[in-house]
Amino acid sequence: MRNIKLIIEYDGTNYHGWQTQINALAIQDVIRDAIRKITGEQVDLIGSSRTDVGVHAYGQVANFVTDSNIPDEKFSFALNSVLPFDICIKGSKEVEMDFHSRYSTKGKKYRYKIYNSIYPSAILRDRAYNVKCKLDLEAMKKASLYFLGEHDFTTFRASGSSVKSAVRMITDISLFKKGDIIVFEITGNGFLYNMVRIIVGTLIDVGMGKIKAEEIKSIIESKDRKRAGKTIPAHGLYLIEVYY
Amino acid sequence: MRNIKLIIEYDGTNYHGWQTQINALAIQDVIRDAIRKITGEQVDLIGSSRTDVGVHAYGQVANFVTDSNIPDEKFSFALNSVLPFDICIKGSKEVEMDFHSRYSTKGKKYRYKIYNSIYPSAILRDRAYNVKCKLDLEAMKKASLYFLGEHDFTTFRASGSSVKSAVRMITDISLFKKGDIIVFEITGNGFLYNMVRIIVGTLIDVGMGKIKAEEIKSIIESKDRKRAGKTIPAHGLYLIEVYY
Repeated sequence: MRNIKLIIEYDGTNYHGWQTQINALAIQDVIRDAIRKITGEQVDLIGSSRTDVGVHAYGQVANFVTDSNIPDEKFSFALNSVLPFDICIKGSKEVEMDFHSRYSTKGKKYRYKIYNSIYPSAILRDRAYNVKCKLDLEAMKKASLYFLGEHDFTTFRASGSSVKSAVRMITDISLFKKGDIIVFEITGNGFLYNMVRIIVGTLIDVGMGKIKAEEIKSIIESKDRKRAGKTIPAHGLYLIEVYY
Repeated sequence: MRNIKLIIEYDGTNYHGWQTQINALAIQDVIRDAIRKITGEQVDLIGSSRTDVGVHAYGQVANFVTDSNIPDEKFSFALNSVLPFDICIKGSKEVEMDFHSRYSTKGKKYRYKIYNSIYPSAILRDRAYNVKCKLDLEAMKKASLYFLGEHDFTTFRASGSSVKSAVRMITDISLFKKGDIIVFEITGNGFLYNMVRIIVGTLIDVGMGKIKAEEIKSIIESKDRKRAGKTIPAHGLYLIEVYY
């Protein structure tokens, strides 16, 4: 028995998120079916993050236990030969039996892309969120720094979310513009449900002048979801890397 | 009567190229239908470039003559409201009646994206050509410079092509790498059928060591299509800008 870790890139557009759903095609199902095709085994595939419908990944991580004798680094090529083109394995290797993609996680990095133009983009239509009004990037940068460090992120999680503690540590944040695209990147030890999308939604409100950068501190402290911005669409969000 | 010029971005994946075809959906048809929906007129829509199946555009240009009284800059928004999401108008303005998108062209800029990795990319599957073997970027850069200036590009056009003169002037070429992506950009006063795709196909042969950079000069002079590289796939090609 071996424990195999996969690094996975996917375009989330055509799937109902990572996790197996009733009556809807999830990325987890597609990869599990591909593993069955090459090993004959019906495995448990454990993913690090249950990404939502439409969310993309450059570095989702998953693991499974197998009796197959395929060399560990060959799994990526074998799986890519049977996977649809919008899901690609970018690496496969054997790890310790106690490695668990979800519970062993030390941190994650996400990216959110805003296409800031009065016009939509055909090429980025499923890859970036189109914000039509002018955004004050400097104000957004200033506001983003308040999220650094350890905070209770109750303000920035989907209401009704049931996780016990909302305390998370954000270790790195960056925000830059390239042409019409604003790229937001955030690294932390963990993220609550919809947290990145609500944080960026709030930064957009700052960029539009609806919220002042200095207000972010009290908005975080309020633990009041209603004081944050809206949950912006999934299709601008990318899971970039998972750290162990 | 007014002559309206459109700047168009499209994802070419789902269309049979720019130009109207029998029994296949072309981008030209879709935009012409959108114009009919907002003006009631069946116009002639003249495009600057007949991009192939799968080729993308950030800056295709087209023009049409209309009796509609829609303000010129409003055409973009009105058309975007009826166009599918993979075709977007990025600007519209009234131009002189003698402006012709195709015949008035002074030059064009194209980009070609190579995804250089042993793994495919899910997110770039329709946006970049996956070359799995290692490429010598410095050799490719050196080779690319031989294309600058005025040359007879008979070597680099699709065989059977019937255009009279194959002499074209290349004014700018650049090649750079960002992560796993190699971006090639070329600007010139005109391009023959498949010319960019054959030039990049030849540069890939240089990158693989099949052709030496210094051989490019004699390959151009040979006017022998067989001495150039293959015509690489359309989905890595982008029409960036058309100059008038």
